[in-house]
Amino acid sequence: MNYAVRSEILNLNVYKAGKPIDEVKRELGLNEVIKLASNENPLGCSEKVKAVLKNMIDEANMYPDASNYELKYNIAKKNNVHFDQIFCSTGSDSLIKVICNTFLNSGDESIMGEVTFSRYIDSTKLMGGKVIQIPMKNHGLDLDAMVNAITEKTKIIWLCNPNNPTGTIFTKSELENILKKIPSHVIVVMDEAYIEYVTDKEYPDSLSLLPSYPNMIILRTFSKAYGLAALRCGYGIASKELGGYFNRVIGPFDVNLFAQKAAVTALEDQDFIKLVHNTNKDCKEYLYKELENLGLEYIKSNTNFIMFDTKKDDINLFNELLKRGVIIRPGSFLGMPGWIRLSIGTKEQNIVFINALKEVLSL
Amino acid sequence: MNYAVRSEILNLNVYKAGKPIDEVKRELGLNEVIKLASNENPLGCSEKVKAVLKNMIDEANMYPDASNYELKYNIAKKNNVHFDQIFCSTGSDSLIKVICNTFLNSGDESIMGEVTFSRYIDSTKLMGGKVIQIPMKNHGLDLDAMVNAITEKTKIIWLCNPNNPTGTIFTKSELENILKKIPSHVIVVMDEAYIEYVTDKEYPDSLSLLPSYPNMIILRTFSKAYGLAALRCGYGIASKELGGYFNRVIGPFDVNLFAQKAAVTALEDQDFIKLVHNTNKDCKEYLYKELENLGLEYIKSNTNFIMFDTKKDDINLFNELLKRGVIIRPGSFLGMPGWIRLSIGTKEQNIVFINALKEVLSL
Repeated sequence: MNYAVRSEILNLNVYKAGKPIDEVKRELGLNEVIKLASNENPLGCSEKVKAVLKNMIDEANMYPDASNYELKYNIAKKNNVHFDQIFCSTGSDSLIKVICNTFLNSGDESIMGEVTFSRYIDSTKLMGGKVIQIPMKNHGLDLDAMVNAITEKTKIIWLCNPNNPTGTIFTKSELENILKKIPSHVIVVMDEAYIEYVTDKEYPDSLSLLPSYPNMIILRTFSKAYGLAALRCGYGIASKELGGYFNRVIGPFDVNLFAQKAAVTALEDQDFIKLVHNTNKDCKEYLYKELENLGLEYIKSNTNFIMFDTKKDDINLFNELLKRGVIIRPGSFLGMPGWIRLSIGTKEQNIVFINALKEVLSL
Repeated sequence: MNYAVRSEILNLNVYKAGKPIDEVKRELGLNEVIKLASNENPLGCSEKVKAVLKNMIDEANMYPDASNYELKYNIAKKNNVHFDQIFCSTGSDSLIKVICNTFLNSGDESIMGEVTFSRYIDSTKLMGGKVIQIPMKNHGLDLDAMVNAITEKTKIIWLCNPNNPTGTIFTKSELENILKKIPSHVIVVMDEAYIEYVTDKEYPDSLSLLPSYPNMIILRTFSKAYGLAALRCGYGIASKELGGYFNRVIGPFDVNLFAQKAAVTALEDQDFIKLVHNTNKDCKEYLYKELENLGLEYIKSNTNFIMFDTKKDDINLFNELLKRGVIIRPGSFLGMPGWIRLSIGTKEQNIVFINALKEVLSL
């Protein structure tokens, strides 16, 4: 062909998707399949949200509010920031792309951990940016090394906190310490997709630092604790100036109407979030104990997933677990061969998983 | 601030959204408000789709299928093309952005009509492309002038057929005639968002031309006749090669799970589409007659909207109609001052509109 595709596109990887439950059931002839692979909320979403969604069905033909007015208004109020500081799109994935679209020109550098959320890589490459990956330190982000990697070409530094897929956090004092060292030409992205699950009291309140660091962007999502992954909605908080740019880049109808309405109600139902947090914490303790009994090393998690070392071929374990009706995320897909990332399920699902794990480890 | 925003971003306009029905009701103290401004389907969506959506509510916490497998499979089957030729995203808006993202480098030219879908402009600018707007001919796209405007820098030519906001089409022979003249380095985008409403028998079957013109891309949407604007889903058909590029650019979870499932069922229910087509045709004839009775010039439409010349201040008419509970789209927002773009409503809504129009024209 004669038409010229941008060279950046040719370097992009095709996303390798996990298997949907229905397909696994069909292929393996299983009646029950548990998916503990995508860090979905096993409790579903708030019953109040479900009631709202039921009422939305007759409005499927109507366009969403292009300004996301009600949703932004409620997010701003809950976080005690100005309306113009909020931007919404179809999940954190999309927000990351919007940020790269806003800042990265060809050759600009974007710094991230070596084992972190993979979308930083793809979105950087899409804009012709250079991906700078910094080795991890005790499975967490090595903040000092990341800051030391900053050059004049650095445009963005990605701080996933808690970090996906390791589940680690860095503390308030660690954050304050590096923020002082990051030059103001560098955008600091605080990706807080798992914030509602955090149990560590030293976790930073990044929002309180935003007025002092206008180069900071905070990302949150409704896909994890709020249990709305199907509907695609995430939001960011930044300075009014940055918010203004992002709201120009984001398409007017990116967030669908069901997501807009569901997210507003989800934000209001903080009792549900408390239930989700506490249930996850209890289930995490159970899984820690079981992994310890099996003599398996795991990384202490501040999320709804646990990364643990099987000391075996994780792809093989993935396939064996699949045959037993449990889908997990093999570490090989996440830069940690031999490990498994397990999404914390319901009590019942976790028991099924542990039994399946015992079986496949003894094969 | 020291951080550098891409210069392209600074040139983007902030989308000026239409007023949501609830806001109009509240502001003007009205109980009933009819929105005939966004070309939504006044019949809603298929009852079969509603049943599917009801069953989706308990799956709100699950991620969409990242490969859009079921949806792409069904679109490919219905259109008798290969699975790899299909790409899906959150409405045509988003597909347009994806195409610009794939092809446009700074300074590349993108050719469009002067009065056409505005998202071609924004998405071209986002990538630093140069917008080339060609004056209309009898309110339709001037295909010959558009082709004559092609230079070595031209990357994309946007053929909106039927054209939004004028409702005009170009014919099969007109398309075939220009396709021969368009160099193969230029991507030809056939934006067919309103195809299901077309009544003109000379409308081209672009799909049949695709094998001969691998530089062609066809865009379709579930937002118009399928009545699913709230859920955000559009798709494109292109060569396998181009489909492969687009599927790398599109985020893995852009199309939400509700939209994926709704769209599959919507495609199957072609009886609903026939009903929508026929009802729209009847209502269009009624509105033509009423506009003729009022002595108002209108453009013959192959869509679910009619553009007509009020010979008055359209913004003033917009405000007066708003007071009477009818929202329309003023031509001034669309490059045609003095005109009104009216979305064709239900029989009852159209009568309400005509009565309100008579009132405001006699003010």
